[in-house]
Amino acid sequence: MHEWDADTRVDAAGDGRFTARLGDRWGGAGGRPNGGYLVAFCLRALGEVLPHPDPLAVSAYYLLPGVVGPAVVDTEVVRRGRQVSTGEARLSCRDREVLRVVASFADLGAGGDGAAVLGRAPDLPPPDECVDVYGGLRLPGATVADRVELRGPEPFGWARGRATGTPSAEFWIRFADGRPADPAGMATLVDSVAPAVLELGHPVVSATVELSVHVHARPAPGWLAARAATRHVAGGHYEEDVELWDAGGRLVARSRQLAVLSAR
Amino acid sequence: MHEWDADTRVDAAGDGRFTARLGDRWGGAGGRPNGGYLVAFCLRALGEVLPHPDPLAVSAYYLLPGVVGPAVVDTEVVRRGRQVSTGEARLSCRDREVLRVVASFADLGAGGDGAAVLGRAPDLPPPDECVDVYGGLRLPGATVADRVELRGPEPFGWARGRATGTPSAEFWIRFADGRPADPAGMATLVDSVAPAVLELGHPVVSATVELSVHVHARPAPGWLAARAATRHVAGGHYEEDVELWDAGGRLVARSRQLAVLSAR
Repeated sequence: MHEWDADTRVDAAGDGRFTARLGDRWGGAGGRPNGGYLVAFCLRALGEVLPHPDPLAVSAYYLLPGVVGPAVVDTEVVRRGRQVSTGEARLSCRDREVLRVVASFADLGAGGDGAAVLGRAPDLPPPDECVDVYGGLRLPGATVADRVELRGPEPFGWARGRATGTPSAEFWIRFADGRPADPAGMATLVDSVAPAVLELGHPVVSATVELSVHVHARPAPGWLAARAATRHVAGGHYEEDVELWDAGGRLVARSRQLAVLSAR
Repeated sequence: MHEWDADTRVDAAGDGRFTARLGDRWGGAGGRPNGGYLVAFCLRALGEVLPHPDPLAVSAYYLLPGVVGPAVVDTEVVRRGRQVSTGEARLSCRDREVLRVVASFADLGAGGDGAAVLGRAPDLPPPDECVDVYGGLRLPGATVADRVELRGPEPFGWARGRATGTPSAEFWIRFADGRPADPAGMATLVDSVAPAVLELGHPVVSATVELSVHVHARPAPGWLAARAATRHVAGGHYEEDVELWDAGGRLVARSRQLAVLSAR
């Protein structure tokens, strides 16, 4: 079994409740479980209670830091529709809600007609001609960097000690153990990258307020090409957008998050 | 009192419940209350129960069409934090939930340090040198077009019967009665524009699945410059992003929605 599947397991406990265990292999900087890891528990639990298989739109509100150890996911089926169904999930650690997710699910294998995409996939050298974007640097506690492999033409500027001043990046991304990306897995991937805002040279830690993910299609197997960019920093908040493109040149997922900046 | 304020009134009825009345002056094509109008009831109710004044991140899931007439908003305070508080609101018509909103509120007057913006505001001629983007065309039932004024260098291509093939647009936007835009009002404005996907020439109606709005700052008075773009159409779904820039050249709000396309 792949790491993501083993580490995001949920077990039905009746009445829409699921038990789970947050592991320590998906930590962000500082060692707390990463946001994209936490949301996976909610999506897996919703996948058990909703009639459609694939997350289509996901909104995750981060309330408190997750805590490694036992956890509970409570789900509610909000609406069962013909094309789209919607549910809510609440992830709690030590009896305190840490994450609330609302998500609409659909069958992404059922569509595919009339695709039109504006914009272009990132233009990257092949993955085997690229290098680790962190240049071997590991932020303390950031075990997620061992679960998700990121390769780019050169290491991120901030990882080389020379922030570029431009908070954007293009790179390859995949689960390090070769697990194929799927709609739920992509919700983890989009939040498994050190924030592009580090290229502005601020030594920051960030706390996500909200992460939204739109999934367009089940991706083709293999590496995904990613583009991450921050368009806005102000008032102690910043945004980051991530796009994932599959081997077929399709824009398969987009995410946007709003986070609070604070000095490290 | 301005139209938006009168038409989105909520009255506390105890236990986090508010009563309201959906009006017929904010209809989208077909006459159903527009999505950006519906979300306003939830934001006004949340503004009454949360300790912070301004919506910062808003996620709205559309479950059923809204119905003109009496409505109820049920709110829940999810978390009161120091910088950010989070709540949930459910809008019901005729005892059926039509919209679920989760939102984080903050005090957008309290920040402002270290602003950095990538990208540029739309480059538009002054509003008084622009024209109605609909060229006087009104889709049946779309009364929202009389509440929200949109001016651009020329009418939208589809409104002239010549879809441009490029689903993007830049234009000025404001409440038609001169109401200043504010964070909650901007959540209505971003969804008060006919979808840019009409420029692809499909005669479509669309139903929003999810609308998310990030508000960066309280806007300066006056017209807002808007940029709308669809990046992706596939599998019967499409996305639309809208940016709002204020008179001070600040990116004050961004939205993204995922909608279902269907033939008209």
